[in-house]
Amino acid sequence: MKLVRYGQPGKEKPGLIDSAGKIRDISSIVPDLAGDYLGPEHIARIAAAKVEQLPLVDGNPRLGPCVAKPGNFIAIGLNYSDHAAETGAKIPAEPILFNKAPNSICGPNDDIMFPRDSVKLDWEAEIAFVIGKTASYVSEADAPKHIAGYFICNDVSEREFQIERTGQWTKGKSAPTFGPIGPWLVTPDEIKDVGALALWLDVNGARQQSGNTKNLIFGINTIVSFVSRFMTLDPGDIITTGTPAGVALGRKPPNWLKAGDVVTLGIDGLGQQTSKVVAFKGA
Amino acid sequence: MKLVRYGQPGKEKPGLIDSAGKIRDISSIVPDLAGDYLGPEHIARIAAAKVEQLPLVDGNPRLGPCVAKPGNFIAIGLNYSDHAAETGAKIPAEPILFNKAPNSICGPNDDIMFPRDSVKLDWEAEIAFVIGKTASYVSEADAPKHIAGYFICNDVSEREFQIERTGQWTKGKSAPTFGPIGPWLVTPDEIKDVGALALWLDVNGARQQSGNTKNLIFGINTIVSFVSRFMTLDPGDIITTGTPAGVALGRKPPNWLKAGDVVTLGIDGLGQQTSKVVAFKGA
Repeated sequence: MKLVRYGQPGKEKPGLIDSAGKIRDISSIVPDLAGDYLGPEHIARIAAAKVEQLPLVDGNPRLGPCVAKPGNFIAIGLNYSDHAAETGAKIPAEPILFNKAPNSICGPNDDIMFPRDSVKLDWEAEIAFVIGKTASYVSEADAPKHIAGYFICNDVSEREFQIERTGQWTKGKSAPTFGPIGPWLVTPDEIKDVGALALWLDVNGARQQSGNTKNLIFGINTIVSFVSRFMTLDPGDIITTGTPAGVALGRKPPNWLKAGDVVTLGIDGLGQQTSKVVAFKGA
Repeated sequence: MKLVRYGQPGKEKPGLIDSAGKIRDISSIVPDLAGDYLGPEHIARIAAAKVEQLPLVDGNPRLGPCVAKPGNFIAIGLNYSDHAAETGAKIPAEPILFNKAPNSICGPNDDIMFPRDSVKLDWEAEIAFVIGKTASYVSEADAPKHIAGYFICNDVSEREFQIERTGQWTKGKSAPTFGPIGPWLVTPDEIKDVGALALWLDVNGARQQSGNTKNLIFGINTIVSFVSRFMTLDPGDIITTGTPAGVALGRKPPNWLKAGDVVTLGIDGLGQQTSKVVAFKGA
C-alpha cells in the first residue's frame, strides 16, 4: 500500500492511493499515520479494507509529511562510500548516528525555507523508514518485522551550522522544513528489494545525485539492529539512512541552494518530491 | 507550583504538591503534563484551582517523569568551565547542542539500567526546563515567556558509547532510563533566581558533584534564544543545560557506576532524586 496524509498543515487526514492513483480517505480506520497506529495490527486493518468503498478524496490536496509527530528522527551519516569520499571523511567503522529535530518534517512538496543567517544550504536524497513495532536489541534477521514502511526523505542540511560551528551536527539538521518526507509511506510488501533501489536528485532540472541503495555501507536491517542497541525505537520513530555522492558540499566550489531553486528527487517505487527553496520569512 | 505525574509507568496522572506536601490530582484540569497542556493558559487554569477542593491522592505513589512524551530532548554540552576542564575540553565558543532520545526519560526515583555491553556508565546532575510556548528566533529578554518550568535531570551517559565509538554523542546519551526527570516540574514564579541555585550529586552517600547554576557558561535565557535559531522549540520540548565538575569521567581512575550503586542528586528548590543502578535485564 501507498499511504499518505493529505490536507492543510496540522489538519492532515490519512489516506491511501488507490489503483487509479486517487486518494481514498482512511480516517474511519486510523485517526492518523503516527505512533502506535503504524503497528502491524492497524496496517492489517487498512489492508483489509475494501478500497472501492473508502471515500474518494476530491481534487489534488496538498500532501503532508507521510508520518505525523515522530517520537524521534534519527539520521545515519556518511553511509555511502562515494559521499564519504566527497566530504573528505573516512568510511565509518560503524553507523554514525545523529539527530534531526522531529518537528523539522514537512510535506514532500512544501517549500524548503532558509533559516535566518543561513549561507550554506544543501540537499541530501535518502531512503527513510518508520518503525511500526518497538525495537530494542533486535537482530538483523528480525529487523524487517519492526519496519512499517519506507519513503523518500530530503535530509536538508545547513553546512555552516552543521560543520563550522562548535560541536555536534544537530544544529545544521533541524530547522523547520529540513525534513520533507513522502509523498507516500510505502509498505514493505510493495518493494521487491529495498537494497536495490535507484535514487536521484535534481536542482532546477540538472541531475546532482544519482545513486542506488545497493551502495549503502550499512544496510537498513543493520541500521535497525545497530540503533536498537543504543536506544529503544518506538512506533512512529523515523530513521533516514544517508545520502549518496552529489551534494553541494562535495563540489568545488559548492553550488549551495539559492532562493527560487527547485529541488526534485525520487526513489524507485517510492515516488518523488518537488520543493521550492524560499528565503527566510521570519519567525 | 510544584507539578508531578504520579502512578505506574505509562499510566501516570497529573498532580500538584499541596502546602502539606501531599499530591492533589489535577486530571480534571489537564489530562497530562505534556505538549500544549504546558502552555500558559493551562498553567493559569491549574494555578486558579482551589487546592483544598482537588482530590487528595492516597499513599506514596511512584512519581513518573514530570513531563510526558517530550517532542525533543536537547542537551547542552560542556556548559560549566570546571566540567570542561575535567574532561580535557576547551570552553566552547557557543553552546554545544546534542540530543538524548525523548524516550530515555524516566521517573526521578526509577532504577537506572545499564544498557547491554555498557562498561563506562556515568552521571550528570543538571537543571533542565520545559518549553511552554513555541520558541523560534526569540531574544534572551523574551526567553522566560517560553519556559513552563524547571526540574532536575540526571543526564545519564555511557562514555564508551558517547566518546570512543564512531561519530556523534547521541549513542551514549539515549538508552532507556538515561533521563530521570523530576521529582517536580516547578513553575518559574517559585524560583527567586534560577541563575543562583546549588546543585549536588552523591553516589552511595559520597559527594561527587557540588556546583551552582551561577557558574553556567551559557545561562538559561541564552540557551533558549540560541537553540531557537537552529530549530523550533515546541511546548513539551525539554532542554537540559549541562553539568558541573565531578563526573566519573573526570576522575583518575574513573569511578564508573556499578550495579547496586545509589545515586542521589538535588537542586535548591527543585527537590531531589534517588535512583538505584541495576544490571542490564534484557530487552
